[in-house]
Amino acid sequence: MVIVPADDPHAALVAEFGAGRKNALARVVSIVENRRHGFEQILGRLAGTAGRGHRIGITGPPGAGKSTLCAALTASFRAAGETVGMVAVDPTSPFTGGALLGDRIRLNDVALDDGVFIRSMATRGSLGGLAITTKEIADVFDAFGFDRILIETVGVGQSELDVAAAADTTVVVLVPESGDSIQAMKAGLMEISDIFVVNKADRPGALKLAREIETVLRLRGGETLRNVPAHHGVDLRRAAAASASAPPPQPEGPRPWTIPVLQTVAEKGEGVPALLDALAEHRAWLVATGGLAQRRRQRLADRVREAVARELQRRAWHDGEAILQQALPEMERGDLTPYQVAARIVRAVAG
Amino acid sequence: MVIVPADDPHAALVAEFGAGRKNALARVVSIVENRRHGFEQILGRLAGTAGRGHRIGITGPPGAGKSTLCAALTASFRAAGETVGMVAVDPTSPFTGGALLGDRIRLNDVALDDGVFIRSMATRGSLGGLAITTKEIADVFDAFGFDRILIETVGVGQSELDVAAAADTTVVVLVPESGDSIQAMKAGLMEISDIFVVNKADRPGALKLAREIETVLRLRGGETLRNVPAHHGVDLRRAAAASASAPPPQPEGPRPWTIPVLQTVAEKGEGVPALLDALAEHRAWLVATGGLAQRRRQRLADRVREAVARELQRRAWHDGEAILQQALPEMERGDLTPYQVAARIVRAVAG
Repeated sequence: MVIVPADDPHAALVAEFGAGRKNALARVVSIVENRRHGFEQILGRLAGTAGRGHRIGITGPPGAGKSTLCAALTASFRAAGETVGMVAVDPTSPFTGGALLGDRIRLNDVALDDGVFIRSMATRGSLGGLAITTKEIADVFDAFGFDRILIETVGVGQSELDVAAAADTTVVVLVPESGDSIQAMKAGLMEISDIFVVNKADRPGALKLAREIETVLRLRGGETLRNVPAHHGVDLRRAAAASASAPPPQPEGPRPWTIPVLQTVAEKGEGVPALLDALAEHRAWLVATGGLAQRRRQRLADRVREAVARELQRRAWHDGEAILQQALPEMERGDLTPYQVAARIVRAVAG
Repeated sequence: MVIVPADDPHAALVAEFGAGRKNALARVVSIVENRRHGFEQILGRLAGTAGRGHRIGITGPPGAGKSTLCAALTASFRAAGETVGMVAVDPTSPFTGGALLGDRIRLNDVALDDGVFIRSMATRGSLGGLAITTKEIADVFDAFGFDRILIETVGVGQSELDVAAAADTTVVVLVPESGDSIQAMKAGLMEISDIFVVNKADRPGALKLAREIETVLRLRGGETLRNVPAHHGVDLRRAAAASASAPPPQPEGPRPWTIPVLQTVAEKGEGVPALLDALAEHRAWLVATGGLAQRRRQRLADRVREAVARELQRRAWHDGEAILQQALPEMERGDLTPYQVAARIVRAVAG
């Protein structure tokens, strides 16, 4: 039996949101963040209006000054009359909450501005889920009409990197101190970067680090690896062929993007104008090459994948939990394998 | 139509594996790692014999000396006549592969030993999938009969931490240099640790770091947060109630585990005997309190969850990919939302 909802409980909220009311925005963000009843319905209603804002992912190791850089960028965008929505994945915990709060406080100046909306996400619990929520909050900001959407994540771990990589432009922030300890992270960071920033560039080793990054980039041709996103498994050529109206994802004469390596002292605003230029250039490049449409198509496909996985999990564990609990003693005795129990649960949901 | 396999193509391999043949082990590991046809069937056949080995997770930031510590531990276990299986999640990439290879080379001494088996995993592609594979390789080692199973992961990111946390005993390794840059990581590391190790303790700041960790641990009572694992969502009390033969997860008078903070210089073997003692004590504590049975029950439940998710995804995307590709142009025009497309795909697989 299919239950048809008599009316949309969030219709009034969505209307207020559409009228640009900030308290409606705050409520929508809260509903999406907490997975409250009807959150997918709301996201669906907003999906049509998203896609105009410039999504900028800012990632890098802890202590790189990402929040300060976001504050500096936000101030510049506001000075140019642009509105800014920012979502930050904040690894708050009872143990380090204080240190991270410091970062947030630096944002206070811009946070009081009416053209700015900031949401910090907690990272308790499963990060896989959090990564998806963060991207959905960016969707909400986009639908609300913010000109720039900043997405700040700690660049330590694949899920975290994936969030930043889902932006139109991904800025990787390092500091001279990062040194050895980020060797292993760098690999992942290299793969998602459109722009590199060496922040705290007034400290020793900044120039050396910038040169190192440039060398590594040159060794592999200096072009972004993200020109043709592949790791999400969507066949973009097939998608483009199916889409008569969409611009071709591969331009006639593809002009490659050369990843700039910039130096900033975000606290003093030094180097920020050059970063703003690079952001504008990258966006223009995305528009000119069809990359912007491509990245947005990729995002739509990602949302479908995430929603499918979520709904299938929900259905499986509606009855699956009882099947699992009942089978645990048999599994412990070795009479039943986890894979046999899994097959039972799958049969219960998908025949 | 259900296709019943005429016979088990891997029966001979499983028999050889059961006889303790190392080349059979290598082939099973390879089949599981590469998700070759029948890998779940093999894991199912091995599931009954796993559960005897002591699984030790070793995690911490890059450069903490985890591989060296693993080599030192392995040498000690071997000296005591115990066999060791080790699986390491290795963030190899074209850019940092060289540096990581260095770590592996240090393991050469122990790797030539016939009582040791080492598998390095690549981290290209989705880490979520890799995390599951790593745990399954540990299952294979356990089924093969290794006395100790070392699981080494870089402790930077939730998926990576989850792998280490899935062990019986989780050792978090830090170094004095970690300092500020690990502040944000520490939160996650605190939550999964059973034993803390400050490695490279002959460098300045080691004692200070150890004291810091002790202070933080004391502030929250000094006991492991993992006594009752909760974040995977299995209701262990219900599971225990359903299991007549299983020991109660909460002992009569639960003696809490006090997380030790040790100092080592792994390269010189300094502090390794104290770490071995702590590992033995933690295992004895797990046995005495029923925690070992509890963690193993949790692992069985996790395998069920992972297998259910994998099979549902497989079924959904068998036809789902075509549905998605066909719907992309409509989504781009805003005529269809990702959530509507997801609902179509879910209906196709689960009615």
